[in-house]
Amino acid sequence: MWAMIATWRMALEGVTHASKMLNENEKVDDAIEQAIKIVEDYPYYKSVGYGGLPNEDMEVELDAGFMNGTTMGVGAIGAIQNFANPISIARRLSLETTNSVLVGQGAEKFAREHGFIEKNMLSDRAIIHYKNRKKEEELKPYIGHDTVGMVGLDKMGTIVSATSTSGLFMKKKGRIGDSPIVGSGFYADSNVGGATATGLGEDLMKGCVSYEIVRLMEQGYSAQQACETVVFSLEKKLIERRGKAGDLSVIAINQKGEFGAASNISNFSFVYASESQEPIVYLVTREGDHCTYAPATKEWLDEYMRTRTAPLKENL
Amino acid sequence: MWAMIATWRMALEGVTHASKMLNENEKVDDAIEQAIKIVEDYPYYKSVGYGGLPNEDMEVELDAGFMNGTTMGVGAIGAIQNFANPISIARRLSLETTNSVLVGQGAEKFAREHGFIEKNMLSDRAIIHYKNRKKEEELKPYIGHDTVGMVGLDKMGTIVSATSTSGLFMKKKGRIGDSPIVGSGFYADSNVGGATATGLGEDLMKGCVSYEIVRLMEQGYSAQQACETVVFSLEKKLIERRGKAGDLSVIAINQKGEFGAASNISNFSFVYASESQEPIVYLVTREGDHCTYAPATKEWLDEYMRTRTAPLKENL
Repeated sequence: MWAMIATWRMALEGVTHASKMLNENEKVDDAIEQAIKIVEDYPYYKSVGYGGLPNEDMEVELDAGFMNGTTMGVGAIGAIQNFANPISIARRLSLETTNSVLVGQGAEKFAREHGFIEKNMLSDRAIIHYKNRKKEEELKPYIGHDTVGMVGLDKMGTIVSATSTSGLFMKKKGRIGDSPIVGSGFYADSNVGGATATGLGEDLMKGCVSYEIVRLMEQGYSAQQACETVVFSLEKKLIERRGKAGDLSVIAINQKGEFGAASNISNFSFVYASESQEPIVYLVTREGDHCTYAPATKEWLDEYMRTRTAPLKENL
Repeated sequence: MWAMIATWRMALEGVTHASKMLNENEKVDDAIEQAIKIVEDYPYYKSVGYGGLPNEDMEVELDAGFMNGTTMGVGAIGAIQNFANPISIARRLSLETTNSVLVGQGAEKFAREHGFIEKNMLSDRAIIHYKNRKKEEELKPYIGHDTVGMVGLDKMGTIVSATSTSGLFMKKKGRIGDSPIVGSGFYADSNVGGATATGLGEDLMKGCVSYEIVRLMEQGYSAQQACETVVFSLEKKLIERRGKAGDLSVIAINQKGEFGAASNISNFSFVYASESQEPIVYLVTREGDHCTYAPATKEWLDEYMRTRTAPLKENL
């Protein structure tokens, strides 16, 4: 049995590629790294890798995390500039016993010393988005939340959870969200399952959501029950304590490859594939403290790509 | 009722000061910030603030975290250079809704813009330690683990958990451990309790230890049971999966002010004070999967300060 789940429609091409790898008995570590690289490399996805939207200083700073649920190896980088594939660096760091989470210039130094590909990650399209946003009256961090997070199970029974993101548009220099933080943005235990999150990192980390989902699955919850429980209990707590809750979306699979997804927003999509299912994009609908999901229609999928690749002009 | 617990003997002066503040009805946010500043400012403690040991590039890079268990506000900084009091910056960031975790140059930019005190944090004594270590044949990251972590409860019922550290001696530039990671280095919920950790950050974060301790207390565990359960179950899992476990030490208090402490090493000390108890330094002894503690003797305390402040010469 193999299975894979990933946040957002943008993961589709990567998951499709990884599905073939998993089907051919390749390791989930390799499959997830390749899948996320595809998302990082695609210039029209504006929240991950190349083409990701910049911080308030017009720098693209990237975060990524990687956990192998068998070895418990964790690697992560935060606020790194000018490297093409943050996920590959995070994976490499997950092999280290110490110094496995590196940020800023130190992360760049490590990446340079280890021969990772250097690249200017600020696309012309991202510059136009930046300039247009600067012309708006009130500068607020982007409220969308489009980290790519993936959880995969390979035929050998290993579960990996991993993330990559450019973070909030117009974030402050040096800001990291939940994506490079183990337990919050990602967590995996091959005996249980894995989870990953996307949304307002500052709120997701207050609930250690990925760790908590895996823990609930260990306690006997289905992947779906675990995802719903974590999202809606954290939302409730945030509203009680802080008056409001940011966007919270999570996905998970257990070690049988069964999946779950939950979100407190209305437009969350995810991709799931397994030995018995081709990759499908699902749209999540919240109903009270539960979520349902249905395959995206062809119209929705076409519209998604149309808006992502639509011509973009600088506002005058 | 008020109570406070902190990692290591080095916290004693800070806890003594904070005890007076808490006794006079001051807020725990203020008391903990003041207490940690005292540790940061003391030049002879070589793992926190000024005098902290540098990374392999001979730069002092500092991490700090702060969580208010009532508002759930979390702030943290990682790998920041040249600021006197990381804890004050982390506390300031905990008031933000977004951009509340900042690393590297971005953290420094924020601190500069907000008027925090700039200071060269590399002491002459730390330079001697660095030079002596460089002369050793094999360069390994320092295996000691001396983050100052504090958890406090004030008379208003608020619980705060906070940390400050210079991290592993000879760490790689940009390395962050568990200290600025919410859930791993620190966690607090005023309805339940708070916890903080010190040890090998790369291992502590694999178990989200501070979050898990608070969660177990919420489930009915005493602070002591929660600390022991988390340390020894994580140690067991790390040994099973990775062949070995790093140093893991944790402390906690619940919302009644009752405390717990556990460690898998032999020389862990902590400080506890409450409305009914002057600050006392305790030494922890492991007995199987349990821990006991006893007040440090005058001889131990005298020896501690003697070794910390002993003259230090460069090896020729």
